[in-house]
Amino acid sequence: MASPDGAKADLKSTFLNVYSVLKSELLQDPAFEFTDVSRQWVQRMLDYNVPGGKLNRGLSVIESYKLLKEGKELTEEEIFLSCTLGWCIEWLQAYFLVLDDIMDGSHTRRGQPCWFRLPEVGIIAANDGILLCNHIPRILKKHFREEPYYVDLLDLFNEVEFQTACGQMIDLITTLEGEKDLSKYTLSLHRRIVQFKTAYYSFYLPVACALLMAGENLDNHIDIKNILVEMGTYFQVQDDYLDCFGAPETIGKIGTDIEDFKCSWLVVKALELSNEEQKKVLYEHYGKPEPEHVVKVKALYNELNLQGVFAEYESQSYEKLTTSIEAHPSKAVQAMLKSFLGKIYKRQK
Amino acid sequence: MASPDGAKADLKSTFLNVYSVLKSELLQDPAFEFTDVSRQWVQRMLDYNVPGGKLNRGLSVIESYKLLKEGKELTEEEIFLSCTLGWCIEWLQAYFLVLDDIMDGSHTRRGQPCWFRLPEVGIIAANDGILLCNHIPRILKKHFREEPYYVDLLDLFNEVEFQTACGQMIDLITTLEGEKDLSKYTLSLHRRIVQFKTAYYSFYLPVACALLMAGENLDNHIDIKNILVEMGTYFQVQDDYLDCFGAPETIGKIGTDIEDFKCSWLVVKALELSNEEQKKVLYEHYGKPEPEHVVKVKALYNELNLQGVFAEYESQSYEKLTTSIEAHPSKAVQAMLKSFLGKIYKRQK
Repeated sequence: MASPDGAKADLKSTFLNVYSVLKSELLQDPAFEFTDVSRQWVQRMLDYNVPGGKLNRGLSVIESYKLLKEGKELTEEEIFLSCTLGWCIEWLQAYFLVLDDIMDGSHTRRGQPCWFRLPEVGIIAANDGILLCNHIPRILKKHFREEPYYVDLLDLFNEVEFQTACGQMIDLITTLEGEKDLSKYTLSLHRRIVQFKTAYYSFYLPVACALLMAGENLDNHIDIKNILVEMGTYFQVQDDYLDCFGAPETIGKIGTDIEDFKCSWLVVKALELSNEEQKKVLYEHYGKPEPEHVVKVKALYNELNLQGVFAEYESQSYEKLTTSIEAHPSKAVQAMLKSFLGKIYKRQK
Repeated sequence: MASPDGAKADLKSTFLNVYSVLKSELLQDPAFEFTDVSRQWVQRMLDYNVPGGKLNRGLSVIESYKLLKEGKELTEEEIFLSCTLGWCIEWLQAYFLVLDDIMDGSHTRRGQPCWFRLPEVGIIAANDGILLCNHIPRILKKHFREEPYYVDLLDLFNEVEFQTACGQMIDLITTLEGEKDLSKYTLSLHRRIVQFKTAYYSFYLPVACALLMAGENLDNHIDIKNILVEMGTYFQVQDDYLDCFGAPETIGKIGTDIEDFKCSWLVVKALELSNEEQKKVLYEHYGKPEPEHVVKVKALYNELNLQGVFAEYESQSYEKLTTSIEAHPSKAVQAMLKSFLGKIYKRQK
């Protein structure tokens, strides 16, 4: 019997095999007449943008489905289909990232230049983002057209894509909207951005895919959705915290939320806890690229003991989430949600 | 009884009323928690980008559906639903145009600055394009979820969007791909770009929507699809022709296909008809912005009598299309396709 680590490596290699299958199917999609040049372009674009992340979202479809099935051995087909849905989420993520990087003017992503930064790509990357987005229904049609939950799957992906684009919209119009104005940054705005831009597609979508495969009606599982959106919010707060307080060598990047005037949980909390004097410091120094400003903001964060405030938030979130999870009638669902929570609780990266 | 012109004006005003309904539904979509600022943003973005075109594609859904119903009076609901599908195509068009304008670095569109050129919009326009694309399944779900053809409608829009993005891809990678190389420009490449980038969504999609509403299975109507793709190709050849030979005051713009190194039907034909000497002229002068180069290319087009070649192509296309249409077993389908063809034959704009 494989060790847990061996099992995890096996799962990942199974998952990567499915990527190769899906890719070659897309490169022979009969709905389009490829030329050699365009086929090569798409192949390279996929390899560059789709499989290079941590694959957590994609893998969690299979893991969730397994837990819902309470350890029953999955058939080859179930494994293939759950991996396929996992890849659809990775495709979705790739599509968002390719376009977000253009909009944010980013330079690197997953340790390599952003796709649009490659000289031979440039703004064609915008269309590549669209292509990635269009691949998802192609994959779903090929493999799920005959499943009873096909239409629910299309509706699900459509709704979550819409929500993510809406989240991205409020993020963009708040951050770039004319003059930088900290007074817009409130806990409720932060919550809204995070919920729509991140939580739905990263937390709810993988589980919703697993539920559909298990024959469930999503309308009956609003409670699961709420818990996952809550968990996704907690996850993003951690992200905001690590951007400032995480070890760069562990998180793999140097945070720039302060310089970029991001609506981070930290600045929102700082505004909430500041007296008039301290607020002035934030208004004067937040969102400026020079190190002397960043230092001032970080000093204020320490003065306000944001590390302590975060630790408090973290343990409260954990407790609240655990209570909600344990209130769920199904032990299988509980196990699945706890496995999710266990993966992110007190994470350092 | 209204005159034909009055009827047309009525149809257009009915159509525009449906736009208002769909817009206000989207602005209250329960899947997203709008803020005032974000609701205003979307409202303005929609008004700026969706309804300002000629609306030919959208209106042709209702017209096609009427002809398929052989003049039977449509119910209020049928009118509303066919207008709604028409608007979905206009939304699709808006989404392509917003993103294409960014990728092409265009300046104006429909007589006003491109959306991304507005200083307060900029690159946020990319996300707005995505939002427009995401609105389509929202509209479809709201109004067609209970129709027996709902899933076919989703599949149809997904397939046509995919094909259009693929067409845009080959256009982009041919036009921008490193050095400008005319030897890539062949009739078969031109055909492929036009078929995928324009014909499917502009010609096939409206009719396919009408067929689905009429309860037809699209798999049984490949012949109609082929005729419409052929018609769309002819339409684009006209467009290429008018870009150079049309009257700017009639077509409403000054063509720049020669300057932009476009894979136009004219340059493809010119390459085909040129001797070695003439080819040299094209290789030297095509795709350069200065007027002296453009003049040389136009002179060659005249030398090769491309106006005559086009006139010949036009009448041959018309005959071929008419023959194909008349071979169709259904008189209603014939009438519908002939009405389409009548609208574009020998058009001057």
